[in-house]
Order: sequence, then C-alpha cells, then structure tokens
Amino acid sequence: MFFADRVSKLHGSAIREMFKLLADPQIISFAGGAPSPALFPSEQLADITAQILKNNPAVALQYGISEGYTPLREFVQSRMKAAGNLGDSDNLIITSGGQQALDLTFKSLINEGDTVAVESPSFIGGLNSIKSYNAKIKAVPVLDDGLDTEALEEIAKNDKIKIVYTIPTFQNPTGITMSLAKRKKMLELAEKYDFFILEDNPYGELRYNGEEIATMKSMDTDGRVIYAGSFSKILSAGMRLGWCVARKDIMEKIIICKQVSDVHTPVLTQMAAYEFCSRYSLDEHIAKSRELYKTRCNAMLSALERYFPKDCSFTRPDGGIFLWCTLPERIDTQELLKKAVQKKVAFVPGATCESDDKSSANKIRLNYSLPDEGKIEKGIKILSEVIAEQ
Amino acid sequence: MFFADRVSKLHGSAIREMFKLLADPQIISFAGGAPSPALFPSEQLADITAQILKNNPAVALQYGISEGYTPLREFVQSRMKAAGNLGDSDNLIITSGGQQALDLTFKSLINEGDTVAVESPSFIGGLNSIKSYNAKIKAVPVLDDGLDTEALEEIAKNDKIKIVYTIPTFQNPTGITMSLAKRKKMLELAEKYDFFILEDNPYGELRYNGEEIATMKSMDTDGRVIYAGSFSKILSAGMRLGWCVARKDIMEKIIICKQVSDVHTPVLTQMAAYEFCSRYSLDEHIAKSRELYKTRCNAMLSALERYFPKDCSFTRPDGGIFLWCTLPERIDTQELLKKAVQKKVAFVPGATCESDDKSSANKIRLNYSLPDEGKIEKGIKILSEVIAEQ
Repeated sequence: MFFADRVSKLHGSAIREMFKLLADPQIISFAGGAPSPALFPSEQLADITAQILKNNPAVALQYGISEGYTPLREFVQSRMKAAGNLGDSDNLIITSGGQQALDLTFKSLINEGDTVAVESPSFIGGLNSIKSYNAKIKAVPVLDDGLDTEALEEIAKNDKIKIVYTIPTFQNPTGITMSLAKRKKMLELAEKYDFFILEDNPYGELRYNGEEIATMKSMDTDGRVIYAGSFSKILSAGMRLGWCVARKDIMEKIIICKQVSDVHTPVLTQMAAYEFCSRYSLDEHIAKSRELYKTRCNAMLSALERYFPKDCSFTRPDGGIFLWCTLPERIDTQELLKKAVQKKVAFVPGATCESDDKSSANKIRLNYSLPDEGKIEKGIKILSEVIAEQ
Repeated sequence: MFFADRVSKLHGSAIREMFKLLADPQIISFAGGAPSPALFPSEQLADITAQILKNNPAVALQYGISEGYTPLREFVQSRMKAAGNLGDSDNLIITSGGQQALDLTFKSLINEGDTVAVESPSFIGGLNSIKSYNAKIKAVPVLDDGLDTEALEEIAKNDKIKIVYTIPTFQNPTGITMSLAKRKKMLELAEKYDFFILEDNPYGELRYNGEEIATMKSMDTDGRVIYAGSFSKILSAGMRLGWCVARKDIMEKIIICKQVSDVHTPVLTQMAAYEFCSRYSLDEHIAKSRELYKTRCNAMLSALERYFPKDCSFTRPDGGIFLWCTLPERIDTQELLKKAVQKKVAFVPGATCESDDKSSANKIRLNYSLPDEGKIEKGIKILSEVIAEQ
C-alpha cells in the first residue's frame, strides 16, 4: 500500500465514530467526554467576541505567533506558576486543544521503535498519537491508586523507556487518581531509568471529593515532566484550546512542530478565552463545573448502586467526568454496546481504551458530565437491564 | 540527543521568527505573507459571532466532528465541485489552515526515506512538514512557466517519487504560474511514474491579470492529485481555516491523522466563516481582495522599475501576493536583510525558501499584500538604495 506505515495501524477512533451516530436525540449517551453545555458562558463570550472583532480585528483575524496570543499565554503561565507547574527553566505554548499538546510532545521526542509506556487502560487520543510515531508501546496496569509502578520498573529494567504517558488525576477512562507516594515513585524511576513523563491533566481542576494531590510537574526538579493542560473541560471543548509546559530545550522543538502542524492556534478563540478569564473569574467558573459534575457523579453512583447487577463493580472518582465499570468476564462489551444502542443507551467499550484493542473486553467507560441527572438515572437503569439479560 | 530525528533537522521558520521582530511599527515589511487587514469583514463577523454564541452555543462551544462543521464543509464542497476540484471519488475535510492540509497529507503518505519532489524555491511551511517526516527531498527548479517538468522526469527515472509538492498558481515565493501544458505534462508523469501530486492552491482565487488556468485537480482522472485550499488569503488568516480534497481512501487516513493532531478545527470559527459565506457573497469579497492586491502589485512593480538597480530582475505575477527578485550573484541576501532592517525595511531572503537552505542566496521574496501603496513606494526606494550600496 502507498500509505505511511504510521497510519496503517490506526483505525479511526471508535469513540469519535460513535459520536456521529449519537446525533439521535433519543439516545442517552454515556459515551462521549464532552463538558455540559449548561456551563458554557455563552452570553459573556458573545459580547466578548463582538467587542474583539469590532475593536481589534487586525489582531483577531490576522496571523499570530506560534507560541500563542501573548496575553492568554501570560495568563496561563501565571496560573501554572501559582500551581507549581511552571518552573524557571520551563516554557509554555498555547495549543489547539489538549490533544495537540500530547501530539506535539510525542512528535518532538519519539523516534520509530522508541519504547513508550502507557497506562492500561488509557485515553485513545493519546494512544493513537503514540502509535502514529511508530513507538513500541508497553502497557502498565492502572491499580486502585494509579499506575502500577512496580510493573513499570520491571519494564524499565529490560527496556530503555523514552516516555511514560500518564493521566494521574481522575484518569481517562477509569476516574482513578494516582497517590502521592506513587507520583514520587514515578519521579524517582524517571531519574533512575532516565525517561520523560508526559503528565496529561485535563481534568485536574475538577476535584469534588478529597484533598488535592500535588502534580508530578510541581515536584519535578530536573525537567523530566512535560505537562499538558486543557480548556476543554473548564471553559469550552469546541474552542480547541490547551497548553503544554516543558523544559525550554524541549519547548523549542515543540514550537517548531507547532509551526509545521498548523502555524498557530486561531487568534480569535485565544483572545476570547483571555478576555473571559480577565473579566470574570475562571476559578469561580470552574467551581460551578465542579458542583454540577459532583451532582452528576453522585447521581450515577446512586443509580449504579441501585440498578447495576451485583456481579459488576465500578470506580468512585473524586473528580473528573468518567467512571469505569467491570462486568463479568463472559461479557464482551463491544457486543453489549450494540444491544445497548438498540435500547438507546451508549457507552465506551473497554477495549477501545487499550493500546492492544483487546484487553478490558469486559469493562466499560461511563461519562456523567453531559447527561443530566434524569437521563443518568434512566440510562443506568436501561443499561443494567441490558447487562442483566446477558 | 533525546529529540526525535524528525525535529533535529528543523530550524524554526526564519520567516516566523522575523515576524516577531516586525512588531516595530516603523518597519516597512515585505517579509510576511499576510492578507491586508483592510479586507477583514470585521463588522459582519462581529455580528455573526455574537449571534452564533447567543443562538447556538451548544454547537459552537462543544466538540465537533473531525471532518469539519457540516454546513461549512458542504459550502466548500459545492464551491470545489463547481470549480472542478472535487470529483465523485473525492472527499473533503476542513483543516486548521492550509498548512494543516499539507501536513496531514504528508503524514498520511510519507514513510521515512520516501522521495518527495519539491519546487526550488518553495513554501517553507510545506518544506518543513516534508522534512519532519524524514523524506528524501529532490528539488526541481521553477522556470518562467512553472516547475521544470524535464528535470522532474529525470528524477522520476532514477528514483521512485512518492509525491510532488507544487504551488502551480502564483507560486510562493516566486509569484510564477505553471502553464496549462506543464500541468498536463505533470499529470502524464504522475501516471507514468506512479506518483501523487499535492496541489497547494492558497492564492489561486487572487488572479488579477490574464486568463484562468485549469487546476491539475480539475484534470485529474484517477485520484492522483490531492488539493489544499485556504481561507487565509480570502477571508482571514488568523481564523486558521483551510481544506483538503483527496480520493476517499486517502481522505480516510487524513481524517484519522486529523483526530490525532487536534481532534477537530474550532467550531466557532467554522460557523462564523460559514455564516459569512451564506449571508454575503464570498466571490464579491474576493473580488475586492483582487482589486486591492492588483493595485499593490502594480505599485510594487512601478517602484521596482523606477528604483531597482538595473542589474536586478523581478517576476511579474498575474495574481497572489508575492514577487521574486534576482540580485547580482555576489549579494548574499541573508546579509542584505540585516542592513535593510537597519534602514527599516524587511523581506524574505531566498535561501529561506529552499529545501537545502542554501540555493537562491542572491534572491529575495517580496510581499505586497500587507503594506499600502505609500509604504511600497517608500520601502522599495530604501531597499534599492541598500542594494545599490553593495
């Protein structure tokens, strides 16, 4: 075939393909990973964009710099500095969503055949990006307190790991949060076995239970941690705004890759996000999101307790937008999905979240940020019935 | 080093680095490739974005599909169909600017070591993308009537060419347009030697002299031509909107690469572009652009005739936004640039537009879309004096 090897092993994201079918308004979807539109500050953004385009069109509609619109970049930099996620030797770029922060990092660092350790299960968009650079992927199980650091060390002993890709906080798809002890262990291992860590943190600000746990980036002393952030879950997903923090030498390469990918992120959306954050309080806005998602998470947990078959189990996230269910071994959740969709309920089958497309065949990812409490209750009831029929 | 090989050979785009220095409002810049902000329909877009965000925020601010916002995609599809650039076996994706259309095409098709033929000189963003996939680059001279097809055939005889990257109409950086005969010859060669052609056409609608020449895509019978289009020069550069047309099997891979790169192009900017095109006439808007750029091109040509040293020559574009000057062999234009910037005039040195970073050392690219007629006259006079001093 004439295609590049890198794409021949990529299938389209099953989640995104499904997303199209879910246009049917009858379907209760736990499948996506979308924020609630009830939280979009649309009136404010309407006024803001109109003012930007009236007062400053020569900036908003013209080419900008690859690093990002300077006021937004400085705003995010000071937020990251305050959170301990931007050290003196680090730099920050605004990206076209969190996905691009991952992709540019992998593009800058991975050579064909390099070993990249990933969580099993993990985020399909991250996994596909790694695959597209022809890396050798090693999957490390996610335990109740996060990635299995012992299994990771076993891999590191036998194989030169280049990067570990991890979502330590409210992980996609499990909702699990890595313990502080494990985060410290990860940094130790990175030093000992000389690898980088890509800490993907799109959900970190959405904590509604328990104590905040320090990011690995905030404890990183020698620039081994690259940090990816996103506005998708705290402001708007469709605006495609994210950021990446990395040591200056790595960031230089990431900026060059950004130029090659799309020159720069649209200026208008960056200006609008900046204006929103400077006129209003992003923290207050996030607080509203946390409250809503807490209510919805609790609604889903109650429904699962009430309706879910007793031989099924599920995680109890302290934040974020996903939880992860384990069904009896005999159930193939890709098959289950077809039956569920007939009953107008959708979820993400576990195998979709695995680098081998096979493991976690009896698991499912459930999203609770998009459907409201009524739909959550109704959808979980239907899903429980579909499972019970198996 | 720990960087991926693909980025170790990329330097940041000299043009984009320069762009930052040009913030000095005193500088007359012929260096960029930006559209005139006088043409931005900012009042209309201000009303449009405010209405979109008030009436349809749940679409504008939410995740969209990787193929693009459907109404915009259909609008561009019908435009492309009318222009003969979208055949029955083709498909179209909305991209984050024309640059992403190039990058996703190369990502989908180029394996390490594949031979890619490019024009000498060519567009730095295209060249860097090709380099980032570790292709073997073969440079083919651009003659007065476009790429040297005989030189291309010589290369094809000795080497398996995978893709030819070309900007046949109002080429960047030369402003030269490929003749119809050569376009047909290119298609013959593509068939004979089994290669693809990436026809990059961001300037094609900006013709102000001479007769329209059929695109290669419109004469393509077996899906060998991939077509990249852009809104950057006809609506807004900062909105980062472009598109790519390719045979369905190739487009499938491009869509997957898009998912991995940035999931989708921002919905708000796509909706705004669509609303503008459906409420107003894009063709009328483009006609205004053509008129302005014709005036500015003529202003630059007159100034060059009046002031430029007699041992220098320059191209006379029939459209687009660039022309290309040849100075005496002894002049290194990278050095010349430093002197010109001291006198507050900037341009792009020729070597920047070459895949080997060396050829065209005595050439310069001049942009006339951004500076107004007064600045063009003044800047060319100063530049001519700087050259004469050499």
